[in-house]
Amino acid sequence: MHLSFLEIINILGTLSFAISGTSAAMRKELDIFGIIIIAFVTAIGGGTLRDVLIGKLPVAWLQDSQTITVVLVGTITTIIFGTWVKKLNYTLFIFDAMGLGLCTLIGIQKGMELHFSPGICIALGAMTGCFGGVIRDTLLNEIPLIFRKEIYASACIIGGLCYYGLLYLKIEHRQAQVICIVLIVLLRVFVVKYQLSLPSVYVKKPS
Amino acid sequence: MHLSFLEIINILGTLSFAISGTSAAMRKELDIFGIIIIAFVTAIGGGTLRDVLIGKLPVAWLQDSQTITVVLVGTITTIIFGTWVKKLNYTLFIFDAMGLGLCTLIGIQKGMELHFSPGICIALGAMTGCFGGVIRDTLLNEIPLIFRKEIYASACIIGGLCYYGLLYLKIEHRQAQVICIVLIVLLRVFVVKYQLSLPSVYVKKPS
Amino acid sequence: MHLSFLEIINILGTLSFAISGTSAAMRKELDIFGIIIIAFVTAIGGGTLRDVLIGKLPVAWLQDSQTITVVLVGTITTIIFGTWVKKLNYTLFIFDAMGLGLCTLIGIQKGMELHFSPGICIALGAMTGCFGGVIRDTLLNEIPLIFRKEIYASACIIGGLCYYGLLYLKIEHRQAQVICIVLIVLLRVFVVKYQLSLPSVYVKKPS
Repeated sequence: MHLSFLEIINILGTLSFAISGTSAAMRKELDIFGIIIIAFVTAIGGGTLRDVLIGKLPVAWLQDSQTITVVLVGTITTIIFGTWVKKLNYTLFIFDAMGLGLCTLIGIQKGMELHFSPGICIALGAMTGCFGGVIRDTLLNEIPLIFRKEIYASACIIGGLCYYGLLYLKIEHRQAQVICIVLIVLLRVFVVKYQLSLPSVYVKKPS
Repeated sequence: MHLSFLEIINILGTLSFAISGTSAAMRKELDIFGIIIIAFVTAIGGGTLRDVLIGKLPVAWLQDSQTITVVLVGTITTIIFGTWVKKLNYTLFIFDAMGLGLCTLIGIQKGMELHFSPGICIALGAMTGCFGGVIRDTLLNEIPLIFRKEIYASACIIGGLCYYGLLYLKIEHRQAQVICIVLIVLLRVFVVKYQLSLPSVYVKKPS
Repeated sequence: MHLSFLEIINILGTLSFAISGTSAAMRKELDIFGIIIIAFVTAIGGGTLRDVLIGKLPVAWLQDSQTITVVLVGTITTIIFGTWVKKLNYTLFIFDAMGLGLCTLIGIQKGMELHFSPGICIALGAMTGCFGGVIRDTLLNEIPLIFRKEIYASACIIGGLCYYGLLYLKIEHRQAQVICIVLIVLLRVFVVKYQLSLPSVYVKKPS
């Protein structure tokens, strides 16, 4: 089986989100099927929403067994190791950041294949990257990460703009893709580590 | 009007979920339109998600008046009787279990018609069975039944596996379908009655 | 650029919901990208759900830049003015009511173009009008307006029935459309102003 670069990125993104979904579900002490469902929804949520909106139906994961296999491998590995480690929070955060970077790029590429405008492609990328995590958090009754006043969707948008900038500068495609992914992941890590946030739009009222 | 066996199952499933949705909405004391909306969403939610994902659009209930009629009949009957009975909890539970069994089978069948793999068909079945209830509970701001540590999606999966097992053993189609439905309903009833749950994946930490 | 009457209605509806979404997000003090996402989801949510269900894919806003432009203009204007005004509650309510009326009519029209039955067209209208607001409130972790025991979806349904009534009475199309929109907006305003609600279906239990 020969996999293209983008297929490998897609598998890594799915795997990352499956691990982040499993970690989140284990923190809430769901039973085994509950964990698998949350892992699955996190891993495929963003891509599924994107495929539905662009009308690429039936959605891809119904027609191959690869996605399900990747999710199950990620989930079971995380369960086995996850019962022994204490830092589920950290696992959740790191793999969520990786999934965000990887899946955003996939979303942008799908948009470019259909010749949508750059703005729409970046929106599709952000949607692919963010939506799985939003469903995961909503189903687990947490405030979605995306709304916790840390740069989240913004990281996808910045990564996407940078990607178009690099293509405009005639940087080689593959390199631009890798830079875009790494940039999004690093942005998330730095933002959380140094607790950065966007400048406020709210005028302080005199107290 | 001649209805096939599967059409009858589909109507019964829709009716069951309409009744369970109405009971849930009445417990929250929504007004009449709120009740109808929740009943409708519960009844069609799972099938709609399935039809969107497999690309069978426009979704079926837009094109016939049968589904809407069934939902309205179920809702109005439940409202009339429901104001006099006290056991809305029990009504909700029983009809939710029936809807789960009936709609899971419908979902599996739709997948088989499109020649998806058994794993995907069972996933489509579980989705058809569970999703209406998940939306119902999310909209009513309750923790979805599916995550309450009772066997729920697992019942659909076990029922689906059993169905494929029976087909493999050359049991007649109709019989296998009835057994699959009854098995899921009984599983739910027993599980809740005897408060069973899946074995935990969590290693107990020494206290 | 020549715009038809319905295109103008659609733009006004999108703009209204973008303003209501921005107001709601600012009340919760989200950051700038969070505000834009909520505004966007509120503005396109109802129409997107409708287009997915009727299978009109890719959804319209992926293919033109008009919708995104309208949302951004509405959002940025609201942010600039919104930081100075205190009555975000009132802005949110008024523009939500306007969006409701405008988008309900658009939804009914889309259904009529596809020759669906009147019941289904009104359901599509109510969905187009209500769903954006439901997502907005769910994402912001509030109880959706639609379930707050004020006439909400009911206003769309009454407006829709009235529209069909006017067409049946051979009132000119354009006039009937305007009356339908105005009726829905006024219904919402009156209902909230005078705190009306539907008659209860609950039999009072003797205490």
